[in-house]
Amino acid sequence: MLLESINGPQDLKKLSIHQLNILCAEVRSRIINVVAKNGGHLASSLGAVEAIVALHYCLNLPEDKVIFDVGHQAYTHKILTGRNNKFDTLRKSGGLSGFPSYSESIYDAFISGHSSDAVSLALGLAAGGCRKAVALIGDGSLSGGLCFEGLNNAGHLKKDILVVLNTNELSISPAVGAVSVYINKIISQPLYNRFRESLENFISNRLPKGKVILKLADKFEKELKGFFVPGMLFEELGFRYFGPLDGHNLGLLIPTLKNILTFKGPILLHVVTKKGKGYPPAEKDPVIFHSAAPFDIATGKPLSGSASMSYTDVFGSKIVALARDNKNIVAITAAMPEGTGLDKFRDEYPDRFYDVGIAEGHAVCFAVGLAKNGLKPIVTVYSTFLQRAYDQLIESVGLQNLSVVLCIDRAGISGEDGVTHQGIFDLAYLRSIPNMIVMAPSSADELEAMLEFALNLDKPCAIRYPKAAVSSIKYQVSSIKLGKAEILKEGRDIAIIAIGAMVAPSQEAAALLKKENIDAGVVNARFVKPLDRELFLRISAKYKYIVTVEEGILDGGFGSSVLELLNRPVLRLGLPCEFIEHGKRDWLLEKYGLDAEGIAQSIRSYCK
Amino acid sequence: MLLESINGPQDLKKLSIHQLNILCAEVRSRIINVVAKNGGHLASSLGAVEAIVALHYCLNLPEDKVIFDVGHQAYTHKILTGRNNKFDTLRKSGGLSGFPSYSESIYDAFISGHSSDAVSLALGLAAGGCRKAVALIGDGSLSGGLCFEGLNNAGHLKKDILVVLNTNELSISPAVGAVSVYINKIISQPLYNRFRESLENFISNRLPKGKVILKLADKFEKELKGFFVPGMLFEELGFRYFGPLDGHNLGLLIPTLKNILTFKGPILLHVVTKKGKGYPPAEKDPVIFHSAAPFDIATGKPLSGSASMSYTDVFGSKIVALARDNKNIVAITAAMPEGTGLDKFRDEYPDRFYDVGIAEGHAVCFAVGLAKNGLKPIVTVYSTFLQRAYDQLIESVGLQNLSVVLCIDRAGISGEDGVTHQGIFDLAYLRSIPNMIVMAPSSADELEAMLEFALNLDKPCAIRYPKAAVSSIKYQVSSIKLGKAEILKEGRDIAIIAIGAMVAPSQEAAALLKKENIDAGVVNARFVKPLDRELFLRISAKYKYIVTVEEGILDGGFGSSVLELLNRPVLRLGLPCEFIEHGKRDWLLEKYGLDAEGIAQSIRSYCK
Repeated sequence: MLLESINGPQDLKKLSIHQLNILCAEVRSRIINVVAKNGGHLASSLGAVEAIVALHYCLNLPEDKVIFDVGHQAYTHKILTGRNNKFDTLRKSGGLSGFPSYSESIYDAFISGHSSDAVSLALGLAAGGCRKAVALIGDGSLSGGLCFEGLNNAGHLKKDILVVLNTNELSISPAVGAVSVYINKIISQPLYNRFRESLENFISNRLPKGKVILKLADKFEKELKGFFVPGMLFEELGFRYFGPLDGHNLGLLIPTLKNILTFKGPILLHVVTKKGKGYPPAEKDPVIFHSAAPFDIATGKPLSGSASMSYTDVFGSKIVALARDNKNIVAITAAMPEGTGLDKFRDEYPDRFYDVGIAEGHAVCFAVGLAKNGLKPIVTVYSTFLQRAYDQLIESVGLQNLSVVLCIDRAGISGEDGVTHQGIFDLAYLRSIPNMIVMAPSSADELEAMLEFALNLDKPCAIRYPKAAVSSIKYQVSSIKLGKAEILKEGRDIAIIAIGAMVAPSQEAAALLKKENIDAGVVNARFVKPLDRELFLRISAKYKYIVTVEEGILDGGFGSSVLELLNRPVLRLGLPCEFIEHGKRDWLLEKYGLDAEGIAQSIRSYCK
Repeated sequence: MLLESINGPQDLKKLSIHQLNILCAEVRSRIINVVAKNGGHLASSLGAVEAIVALHYCLNLPEDKVIFDVGHQAYTHKILTGRNNKFDTLRKSGGLSGFPSYSESIYDAFISGHSSDAVSLALGLAAGGCRKAVALIGDGSLSGGLCFEGLNNAGHLKKDILVVLNTNELSISPAVGAVSVYINKIISQPLYNRFRESLENFISNRLPKGKVILKLADKFEKELKGFFVPGMLFEELGFRYFGPLDGHNLGLLIPTLKNILTFKGPILLHVVTKKGKGYPPAEKDPVIFHSAAPFDIATGKPLSGSASMSYTDVFGSKIVALARDNKNIVAITAAMPEGTGLDKFRDEYPDRFYDVGIAEGHAVCFAVGLAKNGLKPIVTVYSTFLQRAYDQLIESVGLQNLSVVLCIDRAGISGEDGVTHQGIFDLAYLRSIPNMIVMAPSSADELEAMLEFALNLDKPCAIRYPKAAVSSIKYQVSSIKLGKAEILKEGRDIAIIAIGAMVAPSQEAAALLKKENIDAGVVNARFVKPLDRELFLRISAKYKYIVTVEEGILDGGFGSSVLELLNRPVLRLGLPCEFIEHGKRDWLLEKYGLDAEGIAQSIRSYCK
């Protein structure tokens, strides 16, 4: 195995192109084997193998820096920078993160997990004196406005940065923006390229020899640009565009990279790759294998389909049903139709479905525009990514006070994806936005009822729920009323006020305590905003101990809101103000004392 | 006066071009007279007069909608939609808002105050069935990524929207991004335009007659586009580009608008205007007259230069002084060098100064990149606009845990600009970000000391202060220590813990109460995060009543943080969870009980 001899980029530089190709095959095999066991981002990681190998070969890491946009394509980079021996632990508690992480390796400049920030970070590095800063971005990154802000500023500052734009082969998934269409157009017109290449060779070969020729060639280039240059859009932003290149051909990638790394100013190298490259099931269905659950390598089938319904499933089915009767319901996602369970809606009502790409701020404003026209827009989004629309939540959703329903998936602990993906801030930041209604369901029935309620409310409304199976505890859902909680169980000295997915473990905790003759009441808060003032004040008067339980950050969160209302001692259980590592959801909940036993134990200590 | 006969767009449609030009002059005069008295956004409002008149003339308002990006150029729109008689009250408490507001008029679709969202909102309207949705944007809007997200999605969806891009004449202020350079290039190459116009006429004249000719012309157009079309960048994004037109020539604007409003799909009309048009001092210095204080019309000079030092002044001078000794200090602003007091730094250290345009997310990520290289980046930003970088504050600043100093101006009540500009959320959202240090100074000396402290800390750090004169109360600033508050005055039963600009009125309140024999201690908290746990717990044990005072939203804010720590009754004074209208800062502070008497009164009621 060549791979065993690679402990860092210096080892890789000794290999021939032929050996590098063998190395790529070994890396692919390693990635497939580990992801089949641990789950992970397979398709994009397999697509980027050669591009990363070529960068390692041509750059001087770690002095030079590669910033991975989103970061989930960086497995090859991890394997080649001394982490191959730990790669089995990928995404496991205490193991390697699924994303770049500066605490793992000096080869990782940043922790990357959200899209579209790589150009800005690389530009900062370049402006700060880093010899060569490279941003590896995908076509998805380009739909995020932040990426455009970075490109726009880079084109202006003229620092030496290289942006490697890695796009898919044509039409794997439907294009979601004008830029995607534009890029497909570039790829489908290879004749442009050949002309451009010969022109570039002409220029770069003569670079040291005669400045006059360079200037002439430069003028010639500019004149002809409109006709012959495919990357006009990037050129207009101040970049020199090279490509599109076959991103799996090291014989092409390496000399090109070596060449353009000697150029000054902002350069964009466009490579075209195949998602899932080298693993036929992933090549065939890159959407499924984007973020894959553990699977059987021979067949590509998931190892164990989860039998239990998730909140996402419940949402996905219910919204389709509701849309049948209410023609005004439209749905918007920022590149997450499958992840948020909106794929059924998309298939059933394609004319009422909008995938706006990785552009959460736009998704929210666009929804406000739709609502102004009397439609009922639902924005489905992961909690962590909704952070990117925070200003629009205030200025557009809150301030316009229109009927926009935010369905926030992956709220709370989101598990193996780790620090950049935990949805732990939403309760804190949503509850301080004026006009916003904030709910969290504790069961399938309640999620369904909340959806109906939200669509009839004519107010901005957020419903947040985790990536988890819905509680198996069954009880009759009383009808949802604005700002009304429900008492699930009366108690003696202690009242537990729980929200969302924390209601079920709180009920279990109460059952555990009951055996010890501690009689705790349980309240399902339902609303984080507005709180059920009347009920909570009544409870506060009745019970000696008040406990709140939430799956979110304690600082400014739900419990803090209850504390503000009651203005008396409250035991608040939730997550501390820190970044939460990766690991299985259940394991993390237990670690932070948010399983039934953990909740019971905290109450025991507090009340004794 | 023609203006007196205009109560809505229908009245304006009866006028000839000649009369419309007279109307424009009357509108200009009205704007100049009112802004000279009340202050306001003069330069951009004067620049947009004809463009707005032409839109009113050609559209069917209010069924059609015009969305004003940022919104501060909309004075003409207000004057022409039945609000001329109230225009004297512009920006005054209880008077007209300086921005569009749906609560003022059915002609205002939204409340607009933050940049770059107009295309998204207009696209939502168009997708929701609005006959014709128009977004009026400036070149500044284009530097914000959200605008690009909107354009990208609009080009894809192919809905009928019109984007009117209003840019300045060449080189009024230095371009801050590649797109600005690009637009200047367009404007400087008018010959492109003539060709394009004749081609467009050719196409549109033949539109109903023969589809074959249309197709031919279309093909012809595409072939030649690279050579002859100035708006290639927009064309690549799926828009049809028209322009650049003289945006002050109604004889040109009106027929062009009438014509292109009949076209299908996304259209971009580029008009070029002069900021401050019609008022020579504003034409000469549009930066000063962007957001002008009351001035003498004859001379253009401010009526009364404020003699007192503001927090902004203190920051501006101190950062220049610190940068002299520390070469690693670099400063970044998102299009607000003057507003944030960074102009002196820019002039002194042009190589260490970055204006990235209206791109707060990028500003923050770019700073993180600089910090990674060992520099000491300071990001100066208005509190309300920092909301646009919330995700980057978590994912880049907090998570990377590098030395980035956020100097947050216009925090708390920012006065006449109103609901969209109040900086009231920052304490709540910053304090729940892990690793973030949050401070607020109560005096000039303390701001200076905090800046020095922050630059030596090697941690992400935020310092927030209002648009206000620094307190005239003088006292010795003890040295700043991480998470350490200072006791300004011991008391008997009551301790007031105040933060930032609320320290001075709290001291005054204590003095008022003293006369009534109520002895309140006063603590300057200095840090919102981390809190001075030790001191606050000691105070909590000693005092019967604890009062917190902050200039920010109460829900999840500073007082909430103290409450979480003490877990006992606390009287929290601050702003309610609602959007705060415009008005003078002092008037608003009094209204919300945050002046000395208001604080004293709240304490009297609480403690009796």
